[in-house]
Amino acid sequence: MKALLIYSGGLDSTTLLYEYMDSIALAVTFDYGSKHNAREIACAVRNCKRLGIKHLVIPLGFIGQYFKSDLLISGGEIPDGSYADENMKSTVVPFRNGIMLAVAAGLAESFGLDAIMLANHGGDHAIYPDCRPEFIDAFAAAVKAGTYNGVQVISPYCNITKRDIALRGKEIGVDFSLTYSCYKGEKMHCGKCGTCVERKEALEGFDPTDYLA
Amino acid sequence: MKALLIYSGGLDSTTLLYEYMDSIALAVTFDYGSKHNAREIACAVRNCKRLGIKHLVIPLGFIGQYFKSDLLISGGEIPDGSYADENMKSTVVPFRNGIMLAVAAGLAESFGLDAIMLANHGGDHAIYPDCRPEFIDAFAAAVKAGTYNGVQVISPYCNITKRDIALRGKEIGVDFSLTYSCYKGEKMHCGKCGTCVERKEALEGFDPTDYLA
Repeated sequence: MKALLIYSGGLDSTTLLYEYMDSIALAVTFDYGSKHNAREIACAVRNCKRLGIKHLVIPLGFIGQYFKSDLLISGGEIPDGSYADENMKSTVVPFRNGIMLAVAAGLAESFGLDAIMLANHGGDHAIYPDCRPEFIDAFAAAVKAGTYNGVQVISPYCNITKRDIALRGKEIGVDFSLTYSCYKGEKMHCGKCGTCVERKEALEGFDPTDYLA
Repeated sequence: MKALLIYSGGLDSTTLLYEYMDSIALAVTFDYGSKHNAREIACAVRNCKRLGIKHLVIPLGFIGQYFKSDLLISGGEIPDGSYADENMKSTVVPFRNGIMLAVAAGLAESFGLDAIMLANHGGDHAIYPDCRPEFIDAFAAAVKAGTYNGVQVISPYCNITKRDIALRGKEIGVDFSLTYSCYKGEKMHCGKCGTCVERKEALEGFDPTDYLA
């Protein structure tokens, strides 16, 4: 199998990059105007360079320009709290995963690759409709029907938690200091936003991150 | 219903724009680096202005940069002949409709719209996997699952031919001289590429187009 990885530079997709490095022919990071995009991309670039994996950054500037979400530079403040909280809904970028998967499908077909890999996991579909398994399944069917080569969508972490991913990453030698999560996008992880709370829980016991709080 | 129309500026989607103008709150044209994009967009802008419909042009420059297709400025010559011919396959832009639909889904959710309209028709799915009804159905299910408001995908012309669309357009007063089809993107329609052959057949008897041949 030759796959394209949708690669944010965060904890989950970096572990996937390491675990499947022999199958991943191309890693793709999307620059869609989020507050933490620049720091994520810097991590993605460094990890791909380390592993010798071809890497593209695809600009999706229209998201920052027209979409409404506090995750974006154009949006409001990032709320503190866990993902389960209703206020984290303001960080949803409408259909973001659908857009990234669609672009990935076109790129995979253009580069002659068989599959798209995605690091969505069992814990992140509560408030994001485009992370839920039923969305991924429906999208996978659309990608299969809409490409000549029947490109597959593979999400190996779909049924495990972020903690499981972190433990797996630790085992295979992922350097988590070269991953970035915080939605606020500052130099140091804030330690209080939903994604920092999740990161702390996942990396507990072996967390190299300096948090502000 | 308040809908977003995926609007190329061609014959089919211009007819759809006219027919559903009261339901269409936003028309979106994608600039993806095709040879005929600039002329299509010029038509789209003019028709939206005439009808007073809000219009956005979304740049997808990465398609022109990385995707392989003779439809693109970055690709080879546009072949002459009908769509049924195998050589027209070179004009397929991998998963283009998937990408446009995905961006439209995110925009629809951001702008609080209920539906996406698409002018795919019964005649154009032979060589394009992402025009086939099974693709549209699968994608519609993914959009419904992946958006908070369950955005619908509606393709009113899915079971009629381009000729039927043209006849409908004539009836409701579409000015076909303000639509552009030719894949070669020159000032005059070439009259010989797949899309010109289709345009001629569809508009026969009331065609305002000056063809080169």
